[in-house]
Amino acid sequence: MNQLGAETIAIGTELLIGGRSDANSLFLADELGKLGIAVRFKSVVGDERQDIVTVIHAAVKRAQVIIMTGGLGPTVDDCTREAVAYATGHRLGRRKEALEGMMARLAQWGRIPNSAQLRQAMIPSGATVLKNPVGSAPGFCLTWKKALIICLPGVPREMEEMMRQEVVPLLRAASESSGRSFQAPISRQVFHTFGLAEADVDAKLKGLISKGVPIDLGLLASPMGVLVSLTTKGNRPVPEKNRDLLQKLASSVRSRLSDWLFAEGHDSMEAVVGRELATRGLMLAVAESCTGGLIGHRLTQVAGSSAYVDRGAVCYSNRAKTEMLGVPAELIARHGAVSKEVAAAMARGIRERANVSVGLSVTGIAGPGGGTETKPVGLVYVGLDDGTGRPIAQEFRFHGDRNAIKQRSSQAALDVLRRWLLDKALK
Amino acid sequence: MNQLGAETIAIGTELLIGGRSDANSLFLADELGKLGIAVRFKSVVGDERQDIVTVIHAAVKRAQVIIMTGGLGPTVDDCTREAVAYATGHRLGRRKEALEGMMARLAQWGRIPNSAQLRQAMIPSGATVLKNPVGSAPGFCLTWKKALIICLPGVPREMEEMMRQEVVPLLRAASESSGRSFQAPISRQVFHTFGLAEADVDAKLKGLISKGVPIDLGLLASPMGVLVSLTTKGNRPVPEKNRDLLQKLASSVRSRLSDWLFAEGHDSMEAVVGRELATRGLMLAVAESCTGGLIGHRLTQVAGSSAYVDRGAVCYSNRAKTEMLGVPAELIARHGAVSKEVAAAMARGIRERANVSVGLSVTGIAGPGGGTETKPVGLVYVGLDDGTGRPIAQEFRFHGDRNAIKQRSSQAALDVLRRWLLDKALK
Repeated sequence: MNQLGAETIAIGTELLIGGRSDANSLFLADELGKLGIAVRFKSVVGDERQDIVTVIHAAVKRAQVIIMTGGLGPTVDDCTREAVAYATGHRLGRRKEALEGMMARLAQWGRIPNSAQLRQAMIPSGATVLKNPVGSAPGFCLTWKKALIICLPGVPREMEEMMRQEVVPLLRAASESSGRSFQAPISRQVFHTFGLAEADVDAKLKGLISKGVPIDLGLLASPMGVLVSLTTKGNRPVPEKNRDLLQKLASSVRSRLSDWLFAEGHDSMEAVVGRELATRGLMLAVAESCTGGLIGHRLTQVAGSSAYVDRGAVCYSNRAKTEMLGVPAELIARHGAVSKEVAAAMARGIRERANVSVGLSVTGIAGPGGGTETKPVGLVYVGLDDGTGRPIAQEFRFHGDRNAIKQRSSQAALDVLRRWLLDKALK
Repeated sequence: MNQLGAETIAIGTELLIGGRSDANSLFLADELGKLGIAVRFKSVVGDERQDIVTVIHAAVKRAQVIIMTGGLGPTVDDCTREAVAYATGHRLGRRKEALEGMMARLAQWGRIPNSAQLRQAMIPSGATVLKNPVGSAPGFCLTWKKALIICLPGVPREMEEMMRQEVVPLLRAASESSGRSFQAPISRQVFHTFGLAEADVDAKLKGLISKGVPIDLGLLASPMGVLVSLTTKGNRPVPEKNRDLLQKLASSVRSRLSDWLFAEGHDSMEAVVGRELATRGLMLAVAESCTGGLIGHRLTQVAGSSAYVDRGAVCYSNRAKTEMLGVPAELIARHGAVSKEVAAAMARGIRERANVSVGLSVTGIAGPGGGTETKPVGLVYVGLDDGTGRPIAQEFRFHGDRNAIKQRSSQAALDVLRRWLLDKALK
């Protein structure tokens, strides 16, 4: 073992084989990172007591903080309590403070615990009960073989609240009292780019980090663009000097990626364009063909978006393009529904009909069918009209399956809008 | 070790801490399940050679088939090759067949391998090279400590093709030649319900599975509904009798959940309603307020949806509801935009304007702002109009954050449409 580190363990057969991804571990990695604890391993295991025991035994050999989520519910499937007790050689017993907390919580809802729920008050001997301020299942933690094992419910909202209210203070206190400390927080900066291939981002960042500098550069491509991350290496003390270095490198990433960089950290394209629209008091209307409503959906994921999103038209059929947006049928006949001309006419049509500042449109072929030699699957046009008589109509050629092309198209359209807003800001 | 089983290992720091979930392992669990190999463990580890070695050492103690994905690319970050060689005590060497396959692939793209890419031909001694029919990085497999270790790229498309073309035949052959066989495939049936709380689904399924029957019942709640699964227990031989039993239990699940059950297996709500619309030759138009385009996006995720989706109107503002759908301003003033009356008027408005068979609408308060005492966040109305003069307008009260409420609302609206289609079929 060369570094202090953490392991997260997600429990549940559905997470293992059931088409469901575990999102809790990413939240935990974030929270632990802020405390300077690097998550180095993540495990997922089904609802089998013996398999959970196996995972606990592997984890204590390689991690000092172990956070288990799930398997604390009232059903027989939920065997995390038994597994932890068995793995660490403790006995399970009904714990007064666990029972009281649970009863108080249920009483608020006008209920009393049934026999199944009473199982939730069974806690391994020697463990500390962790209160659940949101749900009925308490958590617990205990130290075994020098590792701190923390068990939390799998319900995200309960897990998150318990992490914030119970676990983070506990880890802080443990760190301070031991003097052993989890050292400097792991610093991480994330940059979101769109419009450059991964290889091009890589080329632009070439030579950014000199040999021996304790900062990792990461790249990750998806239909939404290429994500760039700078991360101070886990758990090695980061003197001020290195912190400054991270800031210097971040500035360098910003200038090298210039306006392909659309957001940082947890920010998103839809939030970025939303803020810009709101700041300038602009109202937006969207006309979507191949994205089918995805742009509208994304824009309205942002709370408060009604301040700048007026409406959207999903014009899947040609008739809808004509009737909803006034795109002349003969323009569609001449150039095809997937064309620069129609994209521009759609943007203008939705802007005029909504009587707003800016209209944004997208038309394309998401596939898998509908492509031709001259207009292949993945051909997409984005239009923007601001009433100045200088409409934008931009061509894109994407690859991937139907969903990837829809995602890329929505991102491309929002990026065209973002760049138009940027230009406006410079004027 | 009480059962034969598999472990999947996903490699990449981004998967561990970077806000990115690993979807490969779910595909692998599916493919392995078909071969009768139960995935019992899943691990995720960053791009640190020593940590990968630790994970491999834990895996060989508890699994007989180990599939590793990621870390086979050309950059220095990619250290799966080194880690496997080091963990198993093999030397890395450039392998002729790996190099030839890679050069042939790159030649198709008119390129020759650069020095970084040449690293991808480095394979542990004794390992078998696995061809990559889609990308440049070859995979490999080797047997160590009685476990079969298989390494594949992390790019989903490459991983999937290699799994199908190379790994599945290899596992089949291994099973046949050893006579040890992976036994009967794990059978799994998945049922998707909407409209019942998890506790109600649980109650309806009470006593379904008698004690000692080797089939697991799983429940999983999400904004999209409650998923029910029946799974034959991993790797225990499943005689015909048990296979029949699974079918019998599946029938029982179907009748107990009756028409709350909207789909099975990989089928989805949007595909189900799409097929029904297409079969009946019906055209649909959608008017969305709080879902902001999500219903249109979901409907158009299905290839060929242009055959039954005519258009959608995203009417975020009241003005848009009036202008796009003809909802009288005074109706909105009297009942509020979030009301049964407006939902019905929206559905009728979009149906009439689109001149289609059926109009579907949703209006509600997604939050976090905008709620009042009488109309709280989560209050949602779904409308449906088919021109028969008997419009549907249904009230829902959802909980959760903005995204959960949007998801639930879209599912509720599609479910109202599905039930209307069901009724039509019965007439």
